[in-house]
Amino acid sequence: MVYVASTTAPVNIATLKYWGKRDKDLNLPTNSSISVTLAQEDLRTLTSAATDEGFTQDKLWLNGKEESLDSARTQQCLADLRGLRQQVEAQDPQAPKMSQWKLHIVSENNFPTAAGLASSAAGFAALVVAIAKLYQLPQDYSEISKIARKGSGSACRSLFGGYVAWEMGENLDGSDSKAVEVAPLNHWPNMKAAILVVSDMKKDTPSTSGMQLTVKTSDLFQERIKNVVPQRFEEMKQAIRNKDFPTFADLTMKDSNSFHATCLDSYPPIFYMNDTSRKIIRLVHSINAFYNETIVAYTYDAGPNAVLYYLEENESKLFAFIYKLFDKVSGWETKYTEAELNDFLKEFDQSVSPKLDFELDDEIYRGVSRVILTRAGPGPQDTTECLIDENTGLPK
Amino acid sequence: MVYVASTTAPVNIATLKYWGKRDKDLNLPTNSSISVTLAQEDLRTLTSAATDEGFTQDKLWLNGKEESLDSARTQQCLADLRGLRQQVEAQDPQAPKMSQWKLHIVSENNFPTAAGLASSAAGFAALVVAIAKLYQLPQDYSEISKIARKGSGSACRSLFGGYVAWEMGENLDGSDSKAVEVAPLNHWPNMKAAILVVSDMKKDTPSTSGMQLTVKTSDLFQERIKNVVPQRFEEMKQAIRNKDFPTFADLTMKDSNSFHATCLDSYPPIFYMNDTSRKIIRLVHSINAFYNETIVAYTYDAGPNAVLYYLEENESKLFAFIYKLFDKVSGWETKYTEAELNDFLKEFDQSVSPKLDFELDDEIYRGVSRVILTRAGPGPQDTTECLIDENTGLPK
Repeated sequence: MVYVASTTAPVNIATLKYWGKRDKDLNLPTNSSISVTLAQEDLRTLTSAATDEGFTQDKLWLNGKEESLDSARTQQCLADLRGLRQQVEAQDPQAPKMSQWKLHIVSENNFPTAAGLASSAAGFAALVVAIAKLYQLPQDYSEISKIARKGSGSACRSLFGGYVAWEMGENLDGSDSKAVEVAPLNHWPNMKAAILVVSDMKKDTPSTSGMQLTVKTSDLFQERIKNVVPQRFEEMKQAIRNKDFPTFADLTMKDSNSFHATCLDSYPPIFYMNDTSRKIIRLVHSINAFYNETIVAYTYDAGPNAVLYYLEENESKLFAFIYKLFDKVSGWETKYTEAELNDFLKEFDQSVSPKLDFELDDEIYRGVSRVILTRAGPGPQDTTECLIDENTGLPK
Repeated sequence: MVYVASTTAPVNIATLKYWGKRDKDLNLPTNSSISVTLAQEDLRTLTSAATDEGFTQDKLWLNGKEESLDSARTQQCLADLRGLRQQVEAQDPQAPKMSQWKLHIVSENNFPTAAGLASSAAGFAALVVAIAKLYQLPQDYSEISKIARKGSGSACRSLFGGYVAWEMGENLDGSDSKAVEVAPLNHWPNMKAAILVVSDMKKDTPSTSGMQLTVKTSDLFQERIKNVVPQRFEEMKQAIRNKDFPTFADLTMKDSNSFHATCLDSYPPIFYMNDTSRKIIRLVHSINAFYNETIVAYTYDAGPNAVLYYLEENESKLFAFIYKLFDKVSGWETKYTEAELNDFLKEFDQSVSPKLDFELDDEIYRGVSRVILTRAGPGPQDTTECLIDENTGLPK
């Protein structure tokens, strides 16, 4: 009998950045981090896991293609999950001996990899949660997040919805380095995100090797992890609890800049942002200055894409600018009718244009290939979708 | 009788950056800095100063155009120089009472302002030295450098040739914040510089306001000035004394990156480098990796231009790459015949191309408008050229 379980898991985008490992094998970070979980109708991984006494080897199919499960990180996740399943089996002699059986895993993203969005967080979160469900593990998601962390550090934050902290922990074995909820989605549900996917020909330095270079060579990095981030971590949690967007936004922007500053201070220096990224940063500061209120924050991961966080009630203020500037770019049509989009242009013409005190760069859209409009969302979700045929144990 | 004195003064490009003032009025820096003085046949200011009992007001002509002398910084320089002249007059009753007379100053650069090279260092150095000569001041150039410093911080370093340190000092009145020679030009005369003038449409944040923003807002800046720069200052002086180019180059590149990192960590962030600047950084690291030896260093001031330092004996190794990549850009013809330039291409074809293990960006030259080829040079020079008509006291 083939046992099957499925889950979805979300993408998360850090507002306080994870950069630097104190233990590479266990993915233990040099600082705590915070993220917002994004809605899964826009960005999610769906993973089904199956096991059966008759399976002959562990197998993975990713976006329709069979992939290797050989990486040490994946192997570590599977071993940890089997270890927890053994405890279940020890407690309940009736429980099938799944810990001894091979696994089939099938996984699909609902967004193109070409978008340049790190899919590893959602991917490892979904993998670990699907198997935890399959194994009927009793552990809570903070516990499970430690296993996801070993797959990909930031994956641990995708175990929760809303506002999530990854507490760096102190223990050498990583037993206290886990994700916790700062606030649930319904505490501050009106957080939205617009992702400006920035075109870049040059391949980034992979984040794992980039982090190691920064830890090893940046003279400013120790100050960041010892003093700057610990204070910001407390301040940002408080801003989220207070639903204080201006403070949350300032901290988010400062921390993105601080992270990229330590990349630039690495040797040789690492650059993830390009001229378009920088123009968007200037634009965001100009928009906030225009309204004399912080209504939007940027943050950049290890790549040139801008993630803009804003509150739903400020959307027309923000889109008056960014729809005006990026209307030639695709993505808007997924969420708005032509009439609604025209309202943003009207807002620009009537409310912004007459008072505009800085020059807009009409060419800025050329560096952007796509807009992804989304919002804060919940954690991993049960689903009736299943990617595995329960008779054959193979991808449907 | 019109008294006249003339001097030339050089440009200097810091290898350990001055960024941050602890006293804005006195131009007292938050850290010591080091620079290389560049040759004046390529980049210099020529200034003539005249005084006469009959002059009715202080006047300045800059590159053929009358300009205001009203700025507080310029006024401070003139007041200090007149104060020292009063001491001369007090000692020698025969000395004409020039301290009471008005000044005419005429100044010309031999390079276009359009090159985007900060001309204020050479400009204030020449202004102060010309007047010091006119006034026959007995003070040495370290003393005089304190006056130039009040005009423009980095100007104090243009009072010496070769390798120059600006010691930040500790005194509140700036009396120990002055330039000193680390090593004279003839100690390490084979240092050359190639300046790649990078096109940029966006106007930079002026350096004075940029510095103040960094001091006020960057969380990483204190680490830079308290720990990183003081250690680097000693190491770089030693590298110069040892004529140890690889160490000098590594420190130069790291310090440029560290300075720009604190700009990025300012809030709102300041960006001086653009995509072309970043490509040149990558190119320099690739060239050094190719030769498995550090033969070239980049450094960036408050703008996108790359200054590349290298030793004369490595010129053909370096130019095999950079003439190949930037041969469409003007500037090479000022120093080399067509046959010599063809030799660089041959060097590329014969020695580099067969072993090249990274991709060259054929389009990189598009971001560069001009190449300035120069070398380390001496300090302010006497000159027989005079820009003032000794009969009229007006510009020739």
